[in-house]
Amino acid sequence: MRRRLQISVIGAGTCSAELASCAERVGAAIASRGAVLVCGGLGGVMEAAAVGARRCGGLTVGILPGYGAEVANRGIDIVIPTGLGHARNTLVAAAADAVVALAGEHGTASEIALALALGRPVVALDAWQSVDGVLIADGPEEAVETAVRLASRARRAPERS
Amino acid sequence: MRRRLQISVIGAGTCSAELASCAERVGAAIASRGAVLVCGGLGGVMEAAAVGARRCGGLTVGILPGYGAEVANRGIDIVIPTGLGHARNTLVAAAADAVVALAGEHGTASEIALALALGRPVVALDAWQSVDGVLIADGPEEAVETAVRLASRARRAPERS
Amino acid sequence: MRRRLQISVIGAGTCSAELASCAERVGAAIASRGAVLVCGGLGGVMEAAAVGARRCGGLTVGILPGYGAEVANRGIDIVIPTGLGHARNTLVAAAADAVVALAGEHGTASEIALALALGRPVVALDAWQSVDGVLIADGPEEAVETAVRLASRARRAPERS
Amino acid sequence: MRRRLQISVIGAGTCSAELASCAERVGAAIASRGAVLVCGGLGGVMEAAAVGARRCGGLTVGILPGYGAEVANRGIDIVIPTGLGHARNTLVAAAADAVVALAGEHGTASEIALALALGRPVVALDAWQSVDGVLIADGPEEAVETAVRLASRARRAPERS
Repeated sequence: MRRRLQISVIGAGTCSAELASCAERVGAAIASRGAVLVCGGLGGVMEAAAVGARRCGGLTVGILPGYGAEVANRGIDIVIPTGLGHARNTLVAAAADAVVALAGEHGTASEIALALALGRPVVALDAWQSVDGVLIADGPEEAVETAVRLASRARRAPERS
Repeated sequence: MRRRLQISVIGAGTCSAELASCAERVGAAIASRGAVLVCGGLGGVMEAAAVGARRCGGLTVGILPGYGAEVANRGIDIVIPTGLGHARNTLVAAAADAVVALAGEHGTASEIALALALGRPVVALDAWQSVDGVLIADGPEEAVETAVRLASRARRAPERS
Repeated sequence: MRRRLQISVIGAGTCSAELASCAERVGAAIASRGAVLVCGGLGGVMEAAAVGARRCGGLTVGILPGYGAEVANRGIDIVIPTGLGHARNTLVAAAADAVVALAGEHGTASEIALALALGRPVVALDAWQSVDGVLIADGPEEAVETAVRLASRARRAPERS
Repeated sequence: MRRRLQISVIGAGTCSAELASCAERVGAAIASRGAVLVCGGLGGVMEAAAVGARRCGGLTVGILPGYGAEVANRGIDIVIPTGLGHARNTLVAAAADAVVALAGEHGTASEIALALALGRPVVALDAWQSVDGVLIADGPEEAVETAVRLASRARRAPERS
């Protein structure tokens, strides 16, 4: 039996209704594809994406910066409270077969850079156009479709460390 | 909706048939109780416990020391490849509402100490009797029953960091 | 007695003679200012900067990704072998009162983003012009002068976490 | 030029005058031997040891659990603010050519176990007698003498990861 694909969704911890709606569609598309959604477990993009995935029957993982599981957002099924602070960003990147990046701040930028350093494919939506190595998608569903395709391909090839 | 309890199973990375059988019963009991099994994702106790949980329809998480998800044992559903080396032991402890400890080496000893430092209850089976703060159980099913009871109680109380 | 300022130098792990010469001048300027040089402990920019600092009587710290101290470059006095892989980038950023960034790849980009997320000032030399929040300097000595000035100011203000 | 030996001192974060006096003698002996003292950077045993080393002209490193360097004790020269929480214990163990363990709690127990898992020699003073793999010394100076001897030997042999 093969393990399910894991797609990390990254983005701002607080966000507009428009960005939240986009994140929710990303989460829903990940669940519809049968992949596990991974995120940082907090608010904003992370929450909207997890809630979107849950609504479509998906499984969600939240990798938290602190030790208290109770701060995980309401869309999270599995909580990984790391206590690592910003170093948990490395884990959000590493846990992904592919990453979908929405608008965010320095934390999101660090996750993109770490994902690329780890050889994880990164698909971005309407942001991060100036970052080398990031693929730009036209909308939430296209972003997830591209991420799933790249993730499947990476699974078939020997993984890079 | 409440998140499911998470029980970490820790122990040696290579083990005798007898220890493996015990670990498998621990995993099966965790799944039967409806809790998520968390472990270090590698062989020995970790593998036997995860396989036991899977066989009973349980959900399993493997928190790996390296970046390559392909080394996760065959019982793992969700892989968290941390790249943190021995520091990933902290995460195995932190991800647990309660810990069940089987026989192991220094790595297992570190996970017990970290779990206790984090205020996570630790139930041990036929080992670790000399460690202060560890509860000793008589068999796999009793260990899991105690762990689930303590985990439920910890969830109701405000979590400690 | 006040602790000495700590300045992290970040950049590519392999580099041209020109970039190495620039890094060496950065290291020398840090030592001349009486600050401690922190870096990732490996080759390229990290090595040239550490060697430059040592030549001017400076003290140097190398925060390594692995556990083996023997891979530290020849300019390192104090070795911190973390075993954390890419997550050690967070520590290179966190250990700095200010960061000087030279040309680099994804790892360097992640260190810049993490430093900014942590509120550490980042001064960049001839690269990273498109990253918001980074100050651009004209040459090695000016970069260090700016970094030391910002680091001193940050020390006087209450530190951010 | 060879790097100086690094000796980590571990123990309780709050301590009696007697334990503090013992830790101070450990720190002084480390400095007298020309080794760098590494510790967790906070109070109790860590502070007394660092102050003891500084008084004898030694160099001291504090590897902190948080991001704020200002909480480092008054004996610390070089601050490594990790933000890693309890996972920083792994780094205190990994940064040592040998470890001297004084009385402590679960955190200290985890550092001993992690040091042993990493192959770092551990010398303990009047505590930890029941832990396999730990050498017991009769007093502060003897503990440091043994630690320095084992550290020197480990440096000559190829390091283990």
